[in-house]
Amino acid sequence: MNLTPALARLVQELGRLPGIGEKTATRLALFILNADRSYVENLAEAIWAVKAETTLCQECFGLAEGDLCPICRDPQRSEESVCVVEGPADLLSVDRVHEYRGRYHVLHGVLAPLDGIGPDELKIAPLLERLKRGHTREVIIATNPTVEGEATALYLARLIKPLGIRVSRIAHGIPMGGDVEYVDAVTLGRAIEGRREM
Amino acid sequence: MNLTPALARLVQELGRLPGIGEKTATRLALFILNADRSYVENLAEAIWAVKAETTLCQECFGLAEGDLCPICRDPQRSEESVCVVEGPADLLSVDRVHEYRGRYHVLHGVLAPLDGIGPDELKIAPLLERLKRGHTREVIIATNPTVEGEATALYLARLIKPLGIRVSRIAHGIPMGGDVEYVDAVTLGRAIEGRREM
Repeated sequence: MNLTPALARLVQELGRLPGIGEKTATRLALFILNADRSYVENLAEAIWAVKAETTLCQECFGLAEGDLCPICRDPQRSEESVCVVEGPADLLSVDRVHEYRGRYHVLHGVLAPLDGIGPDELKIAPLLERLKRGHTREVIIATNPTVEGEATALYLARLIKPLGIRVSRIAHGIPMGGDVEYVDAVTLGRAIEGRREM
Repeated sequence: MNLTPALARLVQELGRLPGIGEKTATRLALFILNADRSYVENLAEAIWAVKAETTLCQECFGLAEGDLCPICRDPQRSEESVCVVEGPADLLSVDRVHEYRGRYHVLHGVLAPLDGIGPDELKIAPLLERLKRGHTREVIIATNPTVEGEATALYLARLIKPLGIRVSRIAHGIPMGGDVEYVDAVTLGRAIEGRREM
């Protein structure tokens, strides 16, 4: 393609974003080229700022600006319940549900001994410190249903239960709107295992 | 969602890009947040630069850096054939085909009297100037098959033919891989109208 150097470069950089192929990158680049100068400035500035201004919350290790994240600063959110997630994106997904009004703890990964990721590489020690303060009655573990996620959940449960805190795991089963006929065997197995009396 | 202000702003700015909804914007923003500092700098810089460095080619009004675009500077590309398109994105699409080795002329719009866009708002006068230099034997009109695109094609044909230059219109019909059963009636009508003897 006969793109100008600046355009080719932008297409290349945009193409590194997840889920953005060359065609979409070209469309976005042309949009940016034709957009108002003010939008382009805002976009470039926002990209810069997110990297410069975002910190980790000192309490839950979620994304913050400054010491504490909006959730840990919110007096309406209760420390009685702490939901443990793998990453900041998981926190946002869970929090989008609005059913949960407790707090979070972000591990920043899962146990993966083969990749050299042990408990010390994760935010597990600060979680235990936090729980020992005694405000928490339940820990909900929302790591992903992968081998590593399950292992991490078991590991955490074993550490937390002796503190006299209830530990639960989010349910796995057939997604709402899903079809028993087409769902995979592992999910179906988990759905049967996790059946509840009606 | 409990996004930090910087993240919320980036999600908002990314969400204005075409085809990027809130969920995708959030995913992209988190990717940018976690990306290498060098990538983030390059991306912001490239967005800036594309706006600052891109000009219009003084010959064909395609995208350029400096006076002439890469195509008009290429001595291998022949001025014998000029393909007229609506916008720079159309030029890139046509040029992706590699079958065409002539040059282009970008109108930067189509005639739309109701929106106050007449011939003077488009790059029609420079096109005629260019053709009067006498190097061109054929003009291929590749405006879109919309009412305005068709009207613009007819208008141009009427201006160009008196110069003794052949004027052609790209073919419209059933796309390759398309299905006669499912194609819309207007396209099918054009396909029959444009039939060729075998």
